[in-house]
Amino acid sequence: MTHQQPFFELIHTSKKSGARIGRIHTAHGIIETPNFVPVATNAALKSIDSLHANSLGIDLMFCNTYHLLLHPGPDVIASCGGLHAFMNRSRPIITDSGGFQVFSLMYGGVSEELKSKGKKQQANSILKISEEGVVFRSYRDGSPMLLTAESSVQAQKKFGSDIIIPLDELPPYHTSEQTLKRMLDRTNRWELRSLNEHLASPGYQHMYGVLHGGVDRGLRKVSAQFINSHAFDGIAIGGSIGKSKDEMIELLTDIVPMLDATRPRHLLGIGDLASIERAIPLGIDTFDSSHPTKCARHGLLFTMNGFVKIEQTKYKNHNFAPDPLCTCYTCRNHSCAYLHHLFKAHEPVAHILASIHNIHMMMQLFANYRKAIAEDRI
Amino acid sequence: MTHQQPFFELIHTSKKSGARIGRIHTAHGIIETPNFVPVATNAALKSIDSLHANSLGIDLMFCNTYHLLLHPGPDVIASCGGLHAFMNRSRPIITDSGGFQVFSLMYGGVSEELKSKGKKQQANSILKISEEGVVFRSYRDGSPMLLTAESSVQAQKKFGSDIIIPLDELPPYHTSEQTLKRMLDRTNRWELRSLNEHLASPGYQHMYGVLHGGVDRGLRKVSAQFINSHAFDGIAIGGSIGKSKDEMIELLTDIVPMLDATRPRHLLGIGDLASIERAIPLGIDTFDSSHPTKCARHGLLFTMNGFVKIEQTKYKNHNFAPDPLCTCYTCRNHSCAYLHHLFKAHEPVAHILASIHNIHMMMQLFANYRKAIAEDRI
Repeated sequence: MTHQQPFFELIHTSKKSGARIGRIHTAHGIIETPNFVPVATNAALKSIDSLHANSLGIDLMFCNTYHLLLHPGPDVIASCGGLHAFMNRSRPIITDSGGFQVFSLMYGGVSEELKSKGKKQQANSILKISEEGVVFRSYRDGSPMLLTAESSVQAQKKFGSDIIIPLDELPPYHTSEQTLKRMLDRTNRWELRSLNEHLASPGYQHMYGVLHGGVDRGLRKVSAQFINSHAFDGIAIGGSIGKSKDEMIELLTDIVPMLDATRPRHLLGIGDLASIERAIPLGIDTFDSSHPTKCARHGLLFTMNGFVKIEQTKYKNHNFAPDPLCTCYTCRNHSCAYLHHLFKAHEPVAHILASIHNIHMMMQLFANYRKAIAEDRI
Repeated sequence: MTHQQPFFELIHTSKKSGARIGRIHTAHGIIETPNFVPVATNAALKSIDSLHANSLGIDLMFCNTYHLLLHPGPDVIASCGGLHAFMNRSRPIITDSGGFQVFSLMYGGVSEELKSKGKKQQANSILKISEEGVVFRSYRDGSPMLLTAESSVQAQKKFGSDIIIPLDELPPYHTSEQTLKRMLDRTNRWELRSLNEHLASPGYQHMYGVLHGGVDRGLRKVSAQFINSHAFDGIAIGGSIGKSKDEMIELLTDIVPMLDATRPRHLLGIGDLASIERAIPLGIDTFDSSHPTKCARHGLLFTMNGFVKIEQTKYKNHNFAPDPLCTCYTCRNHSCAYLHHLFKAHEPVAHILASIHNIHMMMQLFANYRKAIAEDRI
């Protein structure tokens, strides 16, 4: 009766690599790992309504606290019964702290994203960073907003996310070792305050610690020891992880062994197929990214045999599915010729069907990875 | 064994008005009348994929030959098995001749529509109108294209539309009686050529005649006699029908009695709720319009008690469906607060959910009209 299911159940580690399969147990269901975590920034996948989203077999979905803080705000979401009810999703949700987007503003990282929404780009700026937290200007109405370790956790509590992420300080790409060290110290203090805030109101939610330290192995070690020694339920790898895929893989090779193996490991914001293929053997369990839906909107369809660039003329009269073996709604019901036509005619349904396909393909890809790991083929 | 179901089965005419209920029998199923005919210009409803479209109970869908001629072209659609297979719709489809859009180019009528797609507006022009047909410049690549009575019908045959419409000449808004008369004569010659082309290759398809004559009752009478005396399966009311709703209703009041009552009557391009309410008692059977999906994209949701302007601040925290009695996917699963948020965040799912709701509401509205007519309440 008192037996409690552990949060993370490690099922098998490959005999050939660090790749592993497991199950993350949450109040809203199980997340099989390794798994892909589609990004629903504003509490909606881009161009995929909840009927399709709920039938795609998405174990975990990622929403962005920064965007939801600005609109509609945690109180509206709480009064609608939390994020699950708000967006009509019954399965697990993870949210970040909001810190990444706030700090990206300073470095211009999300300016492109904001632009692509067709909004007038306003002067986004951080007004003040202090031990308390960060004051930034809302891109929506210019009003100043304070984000602290406590307010970020409180927002995520109101969202009712299954997995929440503590506030961290994102260092710029180029920085001195000393600055990096100072920022890591503050990040650790913020993460600890976040953890305390989280543990102060017990419930079904779990918190991941965010690993920092940039490409400095020594600092990554310090960060790992900090997280390993505190009651974080999982570990999210954040901060700068190098300028190329090769650098990233080298870094992950060095740092994954520093991490407590009994906790799930999430790699923040990485979702391209090549990176995933190389990171899974290192023991990464989950990946979030808007890459598949973004590619879909640009007419790039994933298949098990490479990409279909659907706007190419060769698809104009191609009366077969983008991937004839794929079982997604799009491939079961529509041809390349139809998708090609919709893209050329700028029909919104083009984005819908392509996005459904790419997310389904990611789900299938990870199911294949899990099977391959179970059979020690990876 | 030789008994053949008539194309149009008139079931009941109200004791209170000219309103009537009936059934149009096609190879792809029955169309209950009166009914609303959503417009899927490019072989797709705007922002509604085929899974949702097929579950909305749409008896008849309208596609535009002009757009489909330019892209992907009738041959591509034919090689994909026709429009039904191409767009994954098993139920009836009606297409127009392409003439309306071609002539609208001359008068600037679709320029706004083209602009709203975010395309660079090119010089659209009619190069030549002759007895043979009309030569126009493609807005896609500037190439000259010839549209004749025969080529329009052949295109619609290749589409496999259940109901096809003959080529007509659209008069400008302001024109002399003599010009109107001359154009009507040519329209009748084109419609007759269209009918002959249609009858030359028998199949499951049916053809409507298009009623012309502008607001001139005498010419409308000539047009009605022409259509009544030829083997058109139904009658589509086209041409200028006045500059106001009142003028339109007066005109319809005068001209509907001229039409053979055993054939279904379609009112081309009219779909606002106020016009529908006044046209049904006159005996109009079907209406096509992009109005509901266009309104949806502007955040205007139809309800049985008026409109919900979902972007209004009062909906920010409104945790109820747009219409609590509505059984559409959107109302069963999402709140005004969520829809308000999606519109404010410019999420594509906003358009999806609002469009599903508005089309569902139109289907429900017409089901109510049919019931009311059956009970002689209209």
